Amino acid sequence: MNPTRLTELSESLRTSGLSALALNAGPSLVYLTGLHFHLSERPVVAIFTADSEPVIVLPELEVLKVTGMSVRAFPYPENPAEWDSVFRRAVQSLGLDGKRIGVEPRAMRLLEFRYIEAAVGATGRRPEFLDASDAISRLRVHKDADEIAAMRKAVAVAQSALEATLPFLKIGMNEKEIAGELVIQLLRHGSQSEMPFAPIVSAGPNSANPHAVPSERKLQPGDLLVVDWGACVDGYISDLTRTFAVGEVDEEWRKIHQIVLEANAAGRAAAKPGAPCANVDKAARDVIEKAGYGAYFTHRTGHGIGMEGHEEPYMRGDNMQPLEPGMAFTVEPGIYLSGRNGVRIEDNVVIMEDGAECLSDMPRELRVLG
Amino acid sequence: MNPTRLTELSESLRTSGLSALALNAGPSLVYLTGLHFHLSERPVVAIFTADSEPVIVLPELEVLKVTGMSVRAFPYPENPAEWDSVFRRAVQSLGLDGKRIGVEPRAMRLLEFRYIEAAVGATGRRPEFLDASDAISRLRVHKDADEIAAMRKAVAVAQSALEATLPFLKIGMNEKEIAGELVIQLLRHGSQSEMPFAPIVSAGPNSANPHAVPSERKLQPGDLLVVDWGACVDGYISDLTRTFAVGEVDEEWRKIHQIVLEANAAGRAAAKPGAPCANVDKAARDVIEKAGYGAYFTHRTGHGIGMEGHEEPYMRGDNMQPLEPGMAFTVEPGIYLSGRNGVRIEDNVVIMEDGAECLSDMPRELRVLG
Repeated sequence: MNPTRLTELSESLRTSGLSALALNAGPSLVYLTGLHFHLSERPVVAIFTADSEPVIVLPELEVLKVTGMSVRAFPYPENPAEWDSVFRRAVQSLGLDGKRIGVEPRAMRLLEFRYIEAAVGATGRRPEFLDASDAISRLRVHKDADEIAAMRKAVAVAQSALEATLPFLKIGMNEKEIAGELVIQLLRHGSQSEMPFAPIVSAGPNSANPHAVPSERKLQPGDLLVVDWGACVDGYISDLTRTFAVGEVDEEWRKIHQIVLEANAAGRAAAKPGAPCANVDKAARDVIEKAGYGAYFTHRTGHGIGMEGHEEPYMRGDNMQPLEPGMAFTVEPGIYLSGRNGVRIEDNVVIMEDGAECLSDMPRELRVLG
Repeated sequence: MNPTRLTELSESLRTSGLSALALNAGPSLVYLTGLHFHLSERPVVAIFTADSEPVIVLPELEVLKVTGMSVRAFPYPENPAEWDSVFRRAVQSLGLDGKRIGVEPRAMRLLEFRYIEAAVGATGRRPEFLDASDAISRLRVHKDADEIAAMRKAVAVAQSALEATLPFLKIGMNEKEIAGELVIQLLRHGSQSEMPFAPIVSAGPNSANPHAVPSERKLQPGDLLVVDWGACVDGYISDLTRTFAVGEVDEEWRKIHQIVLEANAAGRAAAKPGAPCANVDKAARDVIEKAGYGAYFTHRTGHGIGMEGHEEPYMRGDNMQPLEPGMAFTVEPGIYLSGRNGVRIEDNVVIMEDGAECLSDMPRELRVLG
């Protein structure tokens, strides 16, 4: 358990008018308690209130994980027929009749939610379930020095892993092979084995898909090669992208790469405390629009990073949320021409008291491979 | 899209009295369509009905993934304020007023469910949402020859990866280091980089926790070392466990290992077409109970495997579901003595027309390392 964060959570619940927060297995539970569980067919639910000790409903076979912790455990046996009654006892112990319970829609599955719903329905007045994403994000969005240090390491591991992978690359290798080698280098350089996401290694037409899955297509001269990758250190991730030229590429693509590079620099320069997230998006997007490629920059400029690959704050044109010290996010403009190539350059930025720090410094200029 | 499976799905929906199935990103969507999406803050929902072409609601930046497929795409832009109306149009195009819509509680998050709920609520009579786990599991639980071939490869990759890791192990190495090396070997031997689960490498007291997370504790003479690991090939997984002795271990632990080995053999022998899942559990559990360790075998004997690490069918004492050809699952009895050591031996079995095939054959006897 993390007492400081639990105290902050109580505050945040009060501010949001919530009596309790129900979490399933996932990053927010790790953030508050340090407890890791796989998402599986066995529901794990922890419920936090402002005043009582938290409770956790979990499989008997996981009970060692909470032994000695300041949490009331309600373990259930293997037979699902018995789970409902365990949930009921856990919920009743907190007295949630008619209260407002926060949940995280992005993490909570119907599996866990239905057990909670059934349990509260069995007692007196039904509570109300509300979206608590903001109440928990308010805590998680401000990274402390330890969290930033972990992300700095995750960036360093990612960068050195890609540098170690580049010498292997040659024309004729396929995207999957490159992705496999990159993952091996990430582990060799110190990433945890639970990666933030599978690296995107996409070349030629596949690189025009921002969320491409590595294929068996082989690298060809004239391709652009997009590598979008990250590492995980001490539970915190990095998320970077660099675009390479495979042999000589058309002059048009050198120009497009240069535009994206300038958009990336403009986005990073707009990141400062007090500026709205929208400014970062606008700064990067303006460069691409002025160059005439606005229609081909099809996604927001960035997203928050931390324990998850995508989290608050989001760098979108409609998001007027002000940037604050401790916020960490990506700046990743791109240009994608369907059927041809794509270019994306992504860095990781943290807002500091007096400006912003870019955690990543791997060269962004177009490097020619092979 | 997989037309055969979609036809089977229509049948299965009819049998279950469902008009439609709504799926979010995940294995069932991949099974029916081949479409991979990350679970993220951007909801992806596909809706299947018995007669119409499926629809899919997805981010504009993912739309290339469905181009040319037999699915009606409803792409939404980056601003979440516009998502509700896109969901509404998608749902209205199917005419789901007052119908029965199946969902998968284990996969669907409140995020996607609330968009679907809001969309159907905006039209005429509200549909009813029902648990469709059985309707989809009925298809996925019977593996065809290609699926079994992929799992056979995933077992072979896992086994050769662990054999390649064992020579690295020595007293003084910690669990995390061993897990890291094992993941590298899994990739070198051909596993996809999206692993079914992070390997469990746990020694001494940590091995007494069936779902341990690898720690920084170093291997010590007298430890038992539990390695629970798997590979992923062509989207299908393996899930194996072997237990090793670190140097010489007490005679009691040799005896316990032998009991678990016999329980594993008994469980595998009980696996045959027509037998209820409960028989597999009972056969393994009887061996452990007769030896006096029944209280220390704290979990079911196994779970189904395929695209996921845990799926139907479950080898539990209360599960009278009959085993049928194509069903694939683990047999993994264990004995765990808190604060001391644990032992688990896990194999992967597929039910055939005329019996059962054990896909894994790595030696199960207690091997002494170091």
